[in-house]
Amino acid sequence: MESEFVNWLRARVPSHPLVPIGIGDDAALLSLASGKCVVTSDMLMDGVDFVLNDCDPRRIGRKSLAVNLSDLAAMAAKPVAAIVSLAVPTDVSLEVMKMIYEGVLEMADEFGVALAGGDTNSWKHPLAISVTAIGEPTKRGVLMRGGARAGDVILVTGQFGGSILGRHFDFRPRVEEALYLHSRYELHGAMDVSDGLSLDLNRLARESACGAILDASQVPISADAYRLSEQNPAKGSPLDHALGDGEDFELIIATSPETAEQIVADRSFGVPVTRVGEFIADPGLWLRSATGECHPLTPHGYEH
Amino acid sequence: MESEFVNWLRARVPSHPLVPIGIGDDAALLSLASGKCVVTSDMLMDGVDFVLNDCDPRRIGRKSLAVNLSDLAAMAAKPVAAIVSLAVPTDVSLEVMKMIYEGVLEMADEFGVALAGGDTNSWKHPLAISVTAIGEPTKRGVLMRGGARAGDVILVTGQFGGSILGRHFDFRPRVEEALYLHSRYELHGAMDVSDGLSLDLNRLARESACGAILDASQVPISADAYRLSEQNPAKGSPLDHALGDGEDFELIIATSPETAEQIVADRSFGVPVTRVGEFIADPGLWLRSATGECHPLTPHGYEH
Repeated sequence: MESEFVNWLRARVPSHPLVPIGIGDDAALLSLASGKCVVTSDMLMDGVDFVLNDCDPRRIGRKSLAVNLSDLAAMAAKPVAAIVSLAVPTDVSLEVMKMIYEGVLEMADEFGVALAGGDTNSWKHPLAISVTAIGEPTKRGVLMRGGARAGDVILVTGQFGGSILGRHFDFRPRVEEALYLHSRYELHGAMDVSDGLSLDLNRLARESACGAILDASQVPISADAYRLSEQNPAKGSPLDHALGDGEDFELIIATSPETAEQIVADRSFGVPVTRVGEFIADPGLWLRSATGECHPLTPHGYEH
Repeated sequence: MESEFVNWLRARVPSHPLVPIGIGDDAALLSLASGKCVVTSDMLMDGVDFVLNDCDPRRIGRKSLAVNLSDLAAMAAKPVAAIVSLAVPTDVSLEVMKMIYEGVLEMADEFGVALAGGDTNSWKHPLAISVTAIGEPTKRGVLMRGGARAGDVILVTGQFGGSILGRHFDFRPRVEEALYLHSRYELHGAMDVSDGLSLDLNRLARESACGAILDASQVPISADAYRLSEQNPAKGSPLDHALGDGEDFELIIATSPETAEQIVADRSFGVPVTRVGEFIADPGLWLRSATGECHPLTPHGYEH
């Protein structure tokens, strides 16, 4: 439902002089009288994004902030503060609530983010957590989904697929990596992968009025993707998992071939950056085999 | 649960140099490199704050933003933008979703607020809406709950009680009134009444290390409070409703007796402002009868 709805919303919501970037990107850019800020919000729900009874509540808290920091990273904005709103089942104890917040605070501390407020409510239904993160752009401004150009290289951080085995909780949002790369290199566009590499790459390409070719042999596939495929081959190959599982919270970055080469060679931070393909002028998403043949790739992943 | 939890949270969350006002006020004040912004978030839930099947979805959307604008009003901050996150039951149609957003947009238009983004998710449980509103302080800075002083007069806008008959949906947040008063008069503190006049006044007094005396005969009681009391006298007098019903979304303001007199005499805006009592040095909440006798008043209202 989300994509049809978001399309309606983007057409319906009037543009506003104080919001140069609004609905449709990873976060919004607000132009206040005194300066600019970047705001993003994500809601996590029991049974969808986590299972409260099956996991340490701290991991839920941690993830609820981390997914928002990942959105700020996608804009190359520096995180400043977060606000947490909760709908809490009446049978959840104060201890569990505190553990959720301990997880939020652990993540907040790690990235120097202030927990600035929130809203806590009881009800008789499952837990929902909505976190809003506020950041600020650096001097170079923000990165957007719409900035890729035909001929740009597609770079990705980290590895993809199988996050359900644990990484969807314990990933580290690529905040430092985004700020580092944005400050040193000329990047054209970026996005974080929350719903699936192929689905999110396709969104980035469409926002940039481009198409994209992914090199099948270059996609960094996580050990978890191999594990899942081995457990149940019918659910797809390791590459299928990498292309569609989602919740990797890695970055897709668009930049020129020359800059891409420098970035891939830059060893000054710990996360690998890999060249996985290129943006092209014609719309559409393609998967290129090792022999150079291109086949249409249907974007797949998690639809909200 | 909320108050015990909030107390724990306030003690647990470290102070942060970029958040001069954090957990415990109506909204948070963030000090970004480029300037200050004010942020607040409220979550509304089906069966708690509205009943989806019993009302026009537009009223839900309208309310979800209005409660946040009321929080910005309580800080005397100018609203700029809002972000909307939704957990939507799978059986809710796209039409209903659109109507909810039409309500949000109607309220946003009324106050010049930009809808800047959000997050929409499906699940098999009732509707929850979390809205974050972002504002900016005026040159005079923000108003806080902790600014009342012993000897200050308690002023309130509008009337109290019986909001359940419809006003809890259709109230108009006191944004313009707050900005007008804050720009022209020396106000000491403010708060909006969401949980009940007596409960919220007591919170404001405690934050200000004061007590408060309410004049029973001065509290502006709404026609809805009389109506409710007439329908079911066992549920309390009209005054009881005014003191404890909540969701009035009127403002409590603390200011000097001289300024209070000027404000009450100021006829330049449409909403009545009434003197309902005074802040005192000793802690506690008191109800004063017409003959001048004071009785302890137990703060009551809606506990989250």
